[in-house]
Amino acid sequence: MIEFWYDFASTYSYPAAMRIERLAEEAGVAVAWRPFLLGPLFHGQQGLTDSPFNAFPVKGAYMWRDMERLCSEEGLPLVHPTSFPRNSLLAARVATAGLDDGWTPAFSRAVYQANFVDDADISDPAVLAPIIASVGAGPEHVLAAANSDTIKTRLKDHVRQAQARGLFGAPSFLTEDGELFWGNDRLEQALAWAVHHRSTEHD
Amino acid sequence: MIEFWYDFASTYSYPAAMRIERLAEEAGVAVAWRPFLLGPLFHGQQGLTDSPFNAFPVKGAYMWRDMERLCSEEGLPLVHPTSFPRNSLLAARVATAGLDDGWTPAFSRAVYQANFVDDADISDPAVLAPIIASVGAGPEHVLAAANSDTIKTRLKDHVRQAQARGLFGAPSFLTEDGELFWGNDRLEQALAWAVHHRSTEHD
Repeated sequence: MIEFWYDFASTYSYPAAMRIERLAEEAGVAVAWRPFLLGPLFHGQQGLTDSPFNAFPVKGAYMWRDMERLCSEEGLPLVHPTSFPRNSLLAARVATAGLDDGWTPAFSRAVYQANFVDDADISDPAVLAPIIASVGAGPEHVLAAANSDTIKTRLKDHVRQAQARGLFGAPSFLTEDGELFWGNDRLEQALAWAVHHRSTEHD
Repeated sequence: MIEFWYDFASTYSYPAAMRIERLAEEAGVAVAWRPFLLGPLFHGQQGLTDSPFNAFPVKGAYMWRDMERLCSEEGLPLVHPTSFPRNSLLAARVATAGLDDGWTPAFSRAVYQANFVDDADISDPAVLAPIIASVGAGPEHVLAAANSDTIKTRLKDHVRQAQARGLFGAPSFLTEDGELFWGNDRLEQALAWAVHHRSTEHD
């Protein structure tokens, strides 16, 4: 098993979300999707109130070019969103609400497509509703659940866990033995680690 | 041709310096070594007065563990230096002084070994002198040249060039058509780019 920690506003989480299930299946590793929010970590750890890619434009310029190159290599479309970073709170709550019912991976991929291909405002319930329907869930019920205290608390727990386990960016991958790998470009290495350090009970 | 931009204080530049000549030779790409200083860039672009790995401890903790893993994979020894980051100014000037005589690559690898394996103070002329001798140059003459206005100006030009070309970290790789790749983990991709976008005059 590997934990996949992602934020819907995070650019590099987009290719990771699109690639992880295929690569994990090839490796024989299960994926536990862990939606969380980077904002509180950026603020608490680095004092940032905006994406580092906006706070430091030279990093932003590189990141967008790097994303173009890597999405092109992966055959993934990429449209520079007209608003960045988009508020990912509601989408993260919806993704959290879907965890027990199994539709979080498909929903998450569709949200990345909305944000980074269709340039849609993923903080808008009207944008998320058809995505929720497309993965076979009920938009009205799910959006209500997403705003319940249970789900809000569960997402806050994710953020707390992320902080406690040393995360500082997304995507991040955590193996069962506690190894942290940061970045889409570490996905293969994280899966290889998970395979070679599989806990004995799964052998 | 590919430009390899590195700082002797930069941890990830160490494995890059050890790997680049072998990989570049396999790819049929020449390497232009470009010693520079990250400090002025970190300060000018991000307001930092220390390594980001010290300024943000959570990033530092990850980096050292990541370095352990990747050096282990590459069969490179790694000793966490007792002082980090070490002042890399004098070593960068010496490396710049060696560019025209061809010993900069060997000197640079030996400085990384001194900093990240032998835990030696690479800002100390007494540490650099035997390294200069080991690559076949004259320590007294070279250390004098390193402190000359010519070399100081040349290194400052490197820093200015780095800034003008969008660098913000090390190691960085720049191809002849101006593509920037940041990080030891982008070395293979940068070389592949250099091969596929070779300027016609070299074909």
